[in-house]
Amino acid sequence: MNDLKSYIRDIPDFPQKGIIFRDITSLLQDAKGFGLAIQKMEAMLENIEFDIIVGAESRGFIFGAPIAYNLKKSFVPVRKKGKLPCETMEETYQLEYGQATLEIHKDAIAKGQKVVIIDDLIATGGTLEAIVKLVERLGGKIEKICCLIELPELNGREKLKDYPIETAVSFEGK
Amino acid sequence: MNDLKSYIRDIPDFPQKGIIFRDITSLLQDAKGFGLAIQKMEAMLENIEFDIIVGAESRGFIFGAPIAYNLKKSFVPVRKKGKLPCETMEETYQLEYGQATLEIHKDAIAKGQKVVIIDDLIATGGTLEAIVKLVERLGGKIEKICCLIELPELNGREKLKDYPIETAVSFEGK
Repeated sequence: MNDLKSYIRDIPDFPQKGIIFRDITSLLQDAKGFGLAIQKMEAMLENIEFDIIVGAESRGFIFGAPIAYNLKKSFVPVRKKGKLPCETMEETYQLEYGQATLEIHKDAIAKGQKVVIIDDLIATGGTLEAIVKLVERLGGKIEKICCLIELPELNGREKLKDYPIETAVSFEGK
Repeated sequence: MNDLKSYIRDIPDFPQKGIIFRDITSLLQDAKGFGLAIQKMEAMLENIEFDIIVGAESRGFIFGAPIAYNLKKSFVPVRKKGKLPCETMEETYQLEYGQATLEIHKDAIAKGQKVVIIDDLIATGGTLEAIVKLVERLGGKIEKICCLIELPELNGREKLKDYPIETAVSFEGK
């Protein structure tokens, strides 16, 4: 049993019937749980050389920002369409129902810079794939993708099989 | 001249003509700038006893989460309507055009717990006022409100005059 898992609570039937939502707010509310999560994700980066942490709005901010601060790296936010004030690139991707668009500032990553992507969750991999495309279109090189939670039944790793991915805890179900 | 100010860039005419947007992405991209911001906000809390940091989606997460981690406090996210999976309380408030609704988990704060609110910006104070109401409806006691940026011409402090507020940098204009 992974200790970290005990801080994440299950919410049945959210956002819709039949889905078990893995809720990180219980982890965030417990300083020990949040501390463990950050330390475990930082350990994934111990032997990685990189310049930039990219985190996506908005749960990616909760993990990406502390790690960027602790490791003295640049933090680049990927945001929902219309939120970033300068010139952006955008990627639109499919959700189960409808689609979503993410943006990154064009001047956020220079060609050849080494990037780590941090997020709370890898499920189908759709959001992460959009982030990967944004980073690569700017010339960034993805050194690693780190997530707190993995839902392996949704096959996100398949969509991202060209990239090193590490996750801290894994849950059965969707 | 406040050194921190030099990391925040001005974007004219965003989100609409005549507004100068104070963009923190330039600060986040510079590890020294982000480090200074976090350290300056933590210094505001040196003599404050408290249990919980509340940060609002989504830029409040970028500053609230690292400070909660560093100071070993509970982090409670306030989110846009429909994002939090458990039972919530909500507050609807006016924006310049239209309105917005924020939510907090009902079990996130116990009666009498001491709360610090962290956000990137105090402008009109509308968002912070909604967060204050959510915290107080749950019985939390607000010990301090800390923001990175203040736009004093928008009079946010007037709306929040019963609470101690501290900000790191102040900009003329709206």
